[in-house]
Amino acid sequence: MKRINIGLIGFGTIGAGVVKLLKKNSALISHKTGVKLVLKKIADLDITTDRGVKVDKGVLTTNVDDILRDREIDIVIELIGGYKPAKEFILRAIKSGKHLVTANKAMLAVHGDSIFAAAAKNSVHLGFEAAVCGGIPIIRSIKEGLCATKISSFYWIFNGTCNYILTKMTKEGEKFDDVLKEAQRLGYAEADPTFDIQGIDTAHKLAILIMLSFGTKVRFKDIYTEGISNIAPIDIEFASNLGYKIKLIAIARNDGKSVQARVHPTMLKSDHPLATVGDVYNAVYVNTDATGPTMFYGKGAGMMPTASAVLSDVIEAARGIAQGFSGRVPLLSLKDEFMKEIPIKPIGETASKYYMRITVKDKPGVLSKIAGILGDNGISLESVIQKGKPSSKNVPIVLQTHHAPDSGFKNAIRRIDKLSFVTKKTVYIRIEDQLE
Amino acid sequence: MKRINIGLIGFGTIGAGVVKLLKKNSALISHKTGVKLVLKKIADLDITTDRGVKVDKGVLTTNVDDILRDREIDIVIELIGGYKPAKEFILRAIKSGKHLVTANKAMLAVHGDSIFAAAAKNSVHLGFEAAVCGGIPIIRSIKEGLCATKISSFYWIFNGTCNYILTKMTKEGEKFDDVLKEAQRLGYAEADPTFDIQGIDTAHKLAILIMLSFGTKVRFKDIYTEGISNIAPIDIEFASNLGYKIKLIAIARNDGKSVQARVHPTMLKSDHPLATVGDVYNAVYVNTDATGPTMFYGKGAGMMPTASAVLSDVIEAARGIAQGFSGRVPLLSLKDEFMKEIPIKPIGETASKYYMRITVKDKPGVLSKIAGILGDNGISLESVIQKGKPSSKNVPIVLQTHHAPDSGFKNAIRRIDKLSFVTKKTVYIRIEDQLE
Repeated sequence: MKRINIGLIGFGTIGAGVVKLLKKNSALISHKTGVKLVLKKIADLDITTDRGVKVDKGVLTTNVDDILRDREIDIVIELIGGYKPAKEFILRAIKSGKHLVTANKAMLAVHGDSIFAAAAKNSVHLGFEAAVCGGIPIIRSIKEGLCATKISSFYWIFNGTCNYILTKMTKEGEKFDDVLKEAQRLGYAEADPTFDIQGIDTAHKLAILIMLSFGTKVRFKDIYTEGISNIAPIDIEFASNLGYKIKLIAIARNDGKSVQARVHPTMLKSDHPLATVGDVYNAVYVNTDATGPTMFYGKGAGMMPTASAVLSDVIEAARGIAQGFSGRVPLLSLKDEFMKEIPIKPIGETASKYYMRITVKDKPGVLSKIAGILGDNGISLESVIQKGKPSSKNVPIVLQTHHAPDSGFKNAIRRIDKLSFVTKKTVYIRIEDQLE
Repeated sequence: MKRINIGLIGFGTIGAGVVKLLKKNSALISHKTGVKLVLKKIADLDITTDRGVKVDKGVLTTNVDDILRDREIDIVIELIGGYKPAKEFILRAIKSGKHLVTANKAMLAVHGDSIFAAAAKNSVHLGFEAAVCGGIPIIRSIKEGLCATKISSFYWIFNGTCNYILTKMTKEGEKFDDVLKEAQRLGYAEADPTFDIQGIDTAHKLAILIMLSFGTKVRFKDIYTEGISNIAPIDIEFASNLGYKIKLIAIARNDGKSVQARVHPTMLKSDHPLATVGDVYNAVYVNTDATGPTMFYGKGAGMMPTASAVLSDVIEAARGIAQGFSGRVPLLSLKDEFMKEIPIKPIGETASKYYMRITVKDKPGVLSKIAGILGDNGISLESVIQKGKPSSKNVPIVLQTHHAPDSGFKNAIRRIDKLSFVTKKTVYIRIEDQLE
């Protein structure tokens, strides 16, 4: 049986998962591919810490050249992340004709152009299934499963921490701050939660999914983001009464002229498949011109799910080595010369239905004043809920609007929040009840 | 640009969808593959009926030899279904070195061995994504996306009609018979609903998914099936109160020693992603040793979703022609020599939690008698709900059991249904609250 040698750069959590999974399913993988995958070298600065998986001493090295200069190594797995020195290692591997598998979304989102060009020039396979959505084979599904279709939009529940917080708030009625503190204590959330919630990591991944889906490159600073920190248990309760669940999702739409790319809390119909995605799960809900909606669901991160994605790419590269092909599918789905510049639609020009919770000191005429401001901005109402005792101080008025332009809506909110009887900052959440 | 010629055998609904989609996305497909797909011939006995898509006269033929003997045709799409004459056409195409794409699950489930062997011998690509789950790229995902993992089980919501009926019963509280009649009137359900509900079509598809997932061949007559016709609106209501939804699902599990393969109505936790799959949607919930659960969701049938699956295989074959590879991935995921015989576990040896609704003439001692019979068969109870007026005639007693062996449970049911105070046949539904 043909042996194919692999070099692994980066022996962290995911790296250890790759080693474990390769050991565990070595025979199964050979039975599928007809080749034997041999992990010849693992390079890491730390080669002494126990990773919970047995590795022969001779395999470990602190010198990355033991991989990059070894002519017997055909496939390099890069799992150190970040820009430096990962980029140098990746380019050196590619230039010496080695196939490359990486989970490095930051690198692909920022330096993708030069890396993709190098891979094409050197006719090597470049796999990055592990860069987005952990164990979900979403990149393959977009590039191959849906390759005969035109993708018009996708909706992505992406973030373990935010889902965790919203799930907890929904199920147990706890406050954002309390759940966040608990998540931090348990190690689920970063010390700086804005990284998780509005962070660049999500934008990197979204940029990759948009490139693959729409054939256009977006600058991730153009992606609009809002976090979940304003959401209170009372909003979750109102949402539930209205038949919705609140999720933080990424929305990407392409009408051919412009692309929408935004990340914000969103009310989804309670019985929609995306609404059941909780805890550490991710899901991508993809609309195409032929299939209608499809959804891909699974663990979006973690040692073994990500290891599965890494090895699926290693196996694709190994099949190519054994059978003499590479670059079977263009890296970004479209051949490079057909990638287009499609501008991002500014958030102010998008339209949405909105949920709003306005907190007022209740007195006659309040609602008419609010409705007047909304009307001035071209916003009509679908429903109004007013609860609480009359003449009490902090009474929530909950409104659902019909589709309204974002800029007009935000004008209205600014004016409403200046009204003398409005006692707190108005909370608003977009409603997506179609997902088309 | 290299041109690759395609011959289509069978110009029915799916065939017309393939022609439409290929026309619509022709440029896009070229931009992804670098080749131009040309539909050179369409063979059908009926070449006069309007299919809603424009085709040049010279393309249509009633003589299949115009495809099978045309050396310029590289890829044949077989969409006539059934065994005869499809098998002959498929084998002739393969033997003349043409790549083959088919949606014919019956053929693959029954004559798979000879067809797979012929494809391997003639080094042609054989694509059958369209045979299972319409627009969901489930075959690719199992064979490639999850290729580094061992699949331990999957749960599949498969049937448009049953889902439609159960969705309607759940949302509108209607009776099975009424919803079925309406479905038949609207053309959603076959005149003979057993075909849809307990039918061989499902068994064919399940057999294919089991081959791909577990590397074993099952005879589909060994697949255990129960339909949904016993389920009444009251069961849906009780299920809802207990936190469940009722779905007809296919369950496949592999513990290495035996395989479970069964199709029956099942209570799923209401907030489980599978529980939201309704109407014409399919979903496959796959457990692996690395990713944990993943789910693939979409339209399980229909013209355009199935056309998408057909063309995704055509594109794979076209890439192979352009780049000089074929048989990139073994047809059944594992290379043939590693396929194993794993016996099917008889239904009596499986275990499950059960919901039971026993209808009784209420009087003192009824519950103790029932509990006694259950106890005799080693079945313990998780909950009991007894509603209705005492001493009325048809009072439902709803029980939830802990895990119980199927044979013992059915013994108990037989004994219970013979009790003098039991006035109707007991309804039971398996509960799957783990899906592991």
